[in-house]
Amino acid sequence: MTAEQIIIKKRNGKELSEDEIKFIINGFVDGEVPDYQMSALLMAIYFQGMNFEEIFLLTKAMIESGETVNLDHLEKFPIDKHSTGGVGDKVSLILAPLMAAAGLAIPMMSGRGLGHSGGTLDKLESIPGFRTNLSLKEYVSHLEKYSVAMIGQSQKIAPADKKIYALRDSTGTVPSIPLVVASIMSKKIAEGAKALVLDVKTGKGAFFVSEEKSLELAKNLIAVGERFGMTVSALMTLMDQPLGNSVGNWLETREAIQALKGNGAKDLMDVTIALGAEMLCQTGQESNHKKAISKLSDILSSGKAYQTFVTMVKSQGGDVSIVNNPDHYPQSKYKRDFVSKKDGYVDSIDALKIGVLATELGAGRVKMSDEIDYTAGLIFKKKEGDRVIKGETIAEVYYSRDISVTEIEEKMSEAIHISNEKPGGDKKLILKYISSQKEVDWGSLLNG
Amino acid sequence: MTAEQIIIKKRNGKELSEDEIKFIINGFVDGEVPDYQMSALLMAIYFQGMNFEEIFLLTKAMIESGETVNLDHLEKFPIDKHSTGGVGDKVSLILAPLMAAAGLAIPMMSGRGLGHSGGTLDKLESIPGFRTNLSLKEYVSHLEKYSVAMIGQSQKIAPADKKIYALRDSTGTVPSIPLVVASIMSKKIAEGAKALVLDVKTGKGAFFVSEEKSLELAKNLIAVGERFGMTVSALMTLMDQPLGNSVGNWLETREAIQALKGNGAKDLMDVTIALGAEMLCQTGQESNHKKAISKLSDILSSGKAYQTFVTMVKSQGGDVSIVNNPDHYPQSKYKRDFVSKKDGYVDSIDALKIGVLATELGAGRVKMSDEIDYTAGLIFKKKEGDRVIKGETIAEVYYSRDISVTEIEEKMSEAIHISNEKPGGDKKLILKYISSQKEVDWGSLLNG
Repeated sequence: MTAEQIIIKKRNGKELSEDEIKFIINGFVDGEVPDYQMSALLMAIYFQGMNFEEIFLLTKAMIESGETVNLDHLEKFPIDKHSTGGVGDKVSLILAPLMAAAGLAIPMMSGRGLGHSGGTLDKLESIPGFRTNLSLKEYVSHLEKYSVAMIGQSQKIAPADKKIYALRDSTGTVPSIPLVVASIMSKKIAEGAKALVLDVKTGKGAFFVSEEKSLELAKNLIAVGERFGMTVSALMTLMDQPLGNSVGNWLETREAIQALKGNGAKDLMDVTIALGAEMLCQTGQESNHKKAISKLSDILSSGKAYQTFVTMVKSQGGDVSIVNNPDHYPQSKYKRDFVSKKDGYVDSIDALKIGVLATELGAGRVKMSDEIDYTAGLIFKKKEGDRVIKGETIAEVYYSRDISVTEIEEKMSEAIHISNEKPGGDKKLILKYISSQKEVDWGSLLNG
Repeated sequence: MTAEQIIIKKRNGKELSEDEIKFIINGFVDGEVPDYQMSALLMAIYFQGMNFEEIFLLTKAMIESGETVNLDHLEKFPIDKHSTGGVGDKVSLILAPLMAAAGLAIPMMSGRGLGHSGGTLDKLESIPGFRTNLSLKEYVSHLEKYSVAMIGQSQKIAPADKKIYALRDSTGTVPSIPLVVASIMSKKIAEGAKALVLDVKTGKGAFFVSEEKSLELAKNLIAVGERFGMTVSALMTLMDQPLGNSVGNWLETREAIQALKGNGAKDLMDVTIALGAEMLCQTGQESNHKKAISKLSDILSSGKAYQTFVTMVKSQGGDVSIVNNPDHYPQSKYKRDFVSKKDGYVDSIDALKIGVLATELGAGRVKMSDEIDYTAGLIFKKKEGDRVIKGETIAEVYYSRDISVTEIEEKMSEAIHISNEKPGGDKKLILKYISSQKEVDWGSLLNG
């Protein structure tokens, strides 16, 4: 068996065996299979795909390339949430402490932002002192003590995934369902979660723009998780405009803090509460979603969710004073208001274009080694469907880099479309519930 | 512009611009574009292909990555022949001196064998002392003096091709028409030839098994050559059974020596003479193929072709005494006769299976760093269509490695099929003449 033979087999559209998948994954981690053979195989997988058995075996090989955490001893049920990534998506920062406060354990290993998508780790690290690099021992101990730990992917967890992801990122092989599924699920299974609720984004700012591809991704993630004995369900949510009012690391963390205090934007809270309610029902904490939603609202109002967040920040070394007084955070060098040129309605805010602009402002990375400016980003004063009058501020733009005002104006104008008439047809935010078990009608639950 | 953007563009089936192709080729040669990005791009090209303009620009970028030789000053017209590779294909060894004797200049840069295909360089180097690594200066000087030089690809000629080929070989990206065309034509144009006759093989032992793919390859090779001002035509010839009677480096060189003395096998000589006649007509040395064929037969009978070969061997440092006395060459350790198990006719000899077996005997390489045993190989006593009686030798197998007789018997039995009845329908050897100019009916010329 040689790496070249395996590449040719996949290139020709054949199914790879468990031995072949293990040979290539272990060889790559050991350095015996060079980068250039792995990247050729990744591109062949991009074109030829993998069947379910291969995706399962790839995930298995990636899990077995490192350590796995056992959380069976926890008193509370360990459940995680994963989003396929979007713009303004700070749900994890609200959801993790909220669900810990609701009686679950939340073992959450998150990633960094890349391209137009933000990353939970960067948002957390915008809090001075916050450590996302807990050891696996600390991670387990925090879960025992605080029922929540939000950390980065340890070197010990699925090292094959880490090495492959770095390669995919520079070889145009990111958007491949088998590779995405194996990457996400290898980490989720190795981190010790027993259940998982997925937020599979679809739309302009999502990983896959089409609903069809997003659905295929969701179904594969669920099937692989279940094959490993995990309970998995997914909500497909719309990522056409940024979620909530802010984009950018500290700006989003501040929005999450406000949301934990009960002042969250409607779209942001709808997604957060829906995911949370599913977590309560999936783990049997609540018997139906209506009760679960009501319970979560109570916890938010009581301040318990916010207190859990403060405890977590403190436990992971973060500066609690800045959480309690977000206005003391340093400001970006420049702030520019983007105002409406005419009376009308916000017809659309292109999440992808906003995500790309936020990266250019300093809020994101083009490549993994780029430095992030935590203060850079945007705050939206208006969202899709809102009435605006000429001269009124649609968004505030925060940045410290030397970018011309003209460039910012141009890019904002390209991303935001104002129409004369109120856009018709309410866009649904939660599009689909996907599970191998049951059906839930979220529309009537959240809008009723 | 980044390598990743270029990979994604090609992955998505878009046309690459001249700037993008130059960026990636020059970056790869300079080491700025790493192997793993190039191999991902090569796999994307394998799947998405390239249009003619891209193939031309890729060839151009590969030529410009190194030096080009100018042969305008030669008195004789510099023309080369290239075969897409096969089993037992020792045509170049006969054709180069034959055509030099016929009044043309033959600047020939050849390659080494890999996989089941043999390589002209290895065959030449089976002659003790023969130097294929002439400097470009020596190469030009030999062409001036002897009208023929047979060398390997200098480090200075199309270094991008050399580096890319090594990568293709280990990443399953060899059989891609754009990559094959750019690889062949960059060398042919850089070496200084003004015209080129191609032997595009098709069939079991050919680079592309199907006639359709072989034809597409031929048409692209011709079109790219013409775009660079070169005259190019092609013969498509059948590579179902090995060409001539021998397979293996020294065995083939010895067969070429016999052929140069006028004792060549019919199939081998048909292909050689057809290619040679086309070279004479293409360069205006003869007005029609019938006259050209007759001229070449005369040159072979006169001994001039053999003498030119001897002069070339001597000029390149080879041991002329072994050429004059081939029986003095060292013998392989073992010789095994493969005999017919029954009375009948040789129905088929699978060139690919024979090529693979020859490699296992030591005559070829699995990877470029493998050592070759020049004495290993096969001599066929019977070819397709021949009558055999039970116990009669079909082929002699030469080898020095420890391979079991059973294994050799099994593999030979798999490669050679004996039928009870004489196989019907004469297989045509020269299938097609391909050029942008005219039509030639080879069947009537060679069989008439």
